[in-house]
Amino acid sequence: MQLSEFIDRSIGKWRSQRSAHHLAFSHFEEVRSRIDIVALNADDAEVVELCRSYNIDPATAAHPFRMSWEGESDWDEKEVLEGSCVLVPVPNPQNPSEGKLLRDRGYAETVPAVGRYQLTEDGTFILITEYDRAAAEERIWFGTPNLRFRVSLIKTSDGTGVTTASFSSEIRCLSTN
Amino acid sequence: MQLSEFIDRSIGKWRSQRSAHHLAFSHFEEVRSRIDIVALNADDAEVVELCRSYNIDPATAAHPFRMSWEGESDWDEKEVLEGSCVLVPVPNPQNPSEGKLLRDRGYAETVPAVGRYQLTEDGTFILITEYDRAAAEERIWFGTPNLRFRVSLIKTSDGTGVTTASFSSEIRCLSTN
Repeated sequence: MQLSEFIDRSIGKWRSQRSAHHLAFSHFEEVRSRIDIVALNADDAEVVELCRSYNIDPATAAHPFRMSWEGESDWDEKEVLEGSCVLVPVPNPQNPSEGKLLRDRGYAETVPAVGRYQLTEDGTFILITEYDRAAAEERIWFGTPNLRFRVSLIKTSDGTGVTTASFSSEIRCLSTN
Repeated sequence: MQLSEFIDRSIGKWRSQRSAHHLAFSHFEEVRSRIDIVALNADDAEVVELCRSYNIDPATAAHPFRMSWEGESDWDEKEVLEGSCVLVPVPNPQNPSEGKLLRDRGYAETVPAVGRYQLTEDGTFILITEYDRAAAEERIWFGTPNLRFRVSLIKTSDGTGVTTASFSSEIRCLSTN
């Protein structure tokens, strides 16, 4: 699968069930959310600005998109989880099945982040992002065109330990609501 | 990774946190269990019998093992989940990274089952088992030598729909208890 196809298939509205396993104390957390993934134009001001902040030529970016989410966790029901980020893939010109992924807000930490992605032969998108105090590894793949899975690991910054492992089942919302 | 290494690394006692997502009604199920994986000898009577029941020469089997589990679900707290099964890999002589996996008790249905496995380049063990009324797809991989992950999908028998997706984090029990 090409990156363009993977991102095309990801565009849309999704209803997500996410289970997080906090491994040190065997805690389960349940999160229900709605995710909206929208394609952006390469000349979108936010895309250009994000590229420039990493000294990357915006012309080398491919298939940028915005992801927004809104959900609630059973851990803290008063907290509404919501946010949005811009994501910009920058394929490796020598090997288009891998590259960098810029985002203006990270998964493990809410700061801009740049990760390394790889698209495997069996269609799994693997993303590794290193932060100051942690590292995140995400694997995303399609079960069917309307069902996407995601395993996210939060690791210690030296990469040796996993503190949280989470799994999301994302079902495409086919209605227009 | 070779099959022998994958199975060697799996031998031991594990503490498992499993989350099942019942997709049609967005239900979360939480299961805590202990799993014990023990190597068996190729000439173990149960291994030989299982091979014979599938008309497979026991000499072509490799690294058979027994898996036992005991756990409880938050769905039905009165029900104790426990069981044990014998698993016998039969590598494809032309391509040892794939083969058949015989078991005397299946995952989706408690009847004997034969699945097809494949070990990918990045060390993921993928197992597909077809039953009369369902199909199961499992992906198992190591996060660290003492942390194993498993994603299991229960599909409709025609393979087009996923009814349940579950995710297990399995931590090796390092004490002797």
